[in-house]
Amino acid sequence: MPREHHHSKRCGIYTHIAWHDIKKILLQKIISQSGYVSTTDWPTHKSEIPLGQVPVLEIDGFQLPQSVSIERYVTKQAKLYSTDDFEAAKTDSVIDTIDELRDANLYKIILKQMDEKLVEKRERNLLEEDVPKVFTKLEILIKNYGSDGRFFLGNKLTWADLCCYEQIIRILKLDPEILNKYPKLALNHEHVEKEPTLAEYIKTPPEASF
Amino acid sequence: MPREHHHSKRCGIYTHIAWHDIKKILLQKIISQSGYVSTTDWPTHKSEIPLGQVPVLEIDGFQLPQSVSIERYVTKQAKLYSTDDFEAAKTDSVIDTIDELRDANLYKIILKQMDEKLVEKRERNLLEEDVPKVFTKLEILIKNYGSDGRFFLGNKLTWADLCCYEQIIRILKLDPEILNKYPKLALNHEHVEKEPTLAEYIKTPPEASF
Repeated sequence: MPREHHHSKRCGIYTHIAWHDIKKILLQKIISQSGYVSTTDWPTHKSEIPLGQVPVLEIDGFQLPQSVSIERYVTKQAKLYSTDDFEAAKTDSVIDTIDELRDANLYKIILKQMDEKLVEKRERNLLEEDVPKVFTKLEILIKNYGSDGRFFLGNKLTWADLCCYEQIIRILKLDPEILNKYPKLALNHEHVEKEPTLAEYIKTPPEASF
Repeated sequence: MPREHHHSKRCGIYTHIAWHDIKKILLQKIISQSGYVSTTDWPTHKSEIPLGQVPVLEIDGFQLPQSVSIERYVTKQAKLYSTDDFEAAKTDSVIDTIDELRDANLYKIILKQMDEKLVEKRERNLLEEDVPKVFTKLEILIKNYGSDGRFFLGNKLTWADLCCYEQIIRILKLDPEILNKYPKLALNHEHVEKEPTLAEYIKTPPEASF
């Protein structure tokens, strides 16, 4: 029963690629120990981990693989994911919509292995086609699911807001003016940044051990 | 509260690309009405749907988009997804592992737009590289999570088994002998097919209205 006895658990996460900062915040709330596996140590650790891949969440010696599964579990523990099935489904549909950008990024990775010119074309397409498409959908979802416009679901922070925040800061690096065209996302972004835990983090990013 | 009052709900799904048969079985258990939107009617329907994309699950007039979100919600209602957070996380990690094959397929779609020779190469790679990689991981997960080797989680059917079944029958079309190399997946596949609802379906596939 991980939820009830969470405080007494030996619970750690191992990763050799740093998760995004947002995820670290979640992990700091929930996970007592975390380890960063260096590239040098990786061959040894690889053989000790079930699927030979990181991240792995370890709870009482049981190792859970797959970053998205870990993230879903951790957000549940952090009460950032509704226990009501239909509300949870709405959260999921926001995240699936955000993931359309992740998939767009996948294309980019593949193209990178192939041709430099195609990579440039892909980067232009990301801003000119994928971002407008996905951000427009997200504006509709925040209107349909949110209650006061601050957050995606009702009037409090959920996993959906964190995932969206993560993508937005990625896209802002490519186009710092992008949110001018998406007023609802801009309002959401502003309020997510005001969240106490996150605001503190942005001011003084902790020296994470992973 | 969708779970408690499910029987009294007006609940339907709209799609213009047929979901896989396995998903239809789930939908038949859970969803009272379903509509197939033809290509001709699509332009009209597109404008009535929040994100302009299908499938959409409609519950009491509220439209939920995104196929994976719908699938997760529906499997919860069908009791094919654990209410225990850590068990649910294990299920998710199986599905995320299966999705590595979906991503491999994504590559294929992208390559298709580019060069015929690369598509052929990609198809060979799918069987020679991606399938062995993912199927080997799935063998480890079924060993770690299952109790008697029949199913992925404990000793009963979950969403994980259905997702795996769906991918296996896709890969079997490319290589009918593939399961000889994966005894645990072969056993799982055999038991999923024996499940009463599924067995009945395979024998006499219903004339679904979508």
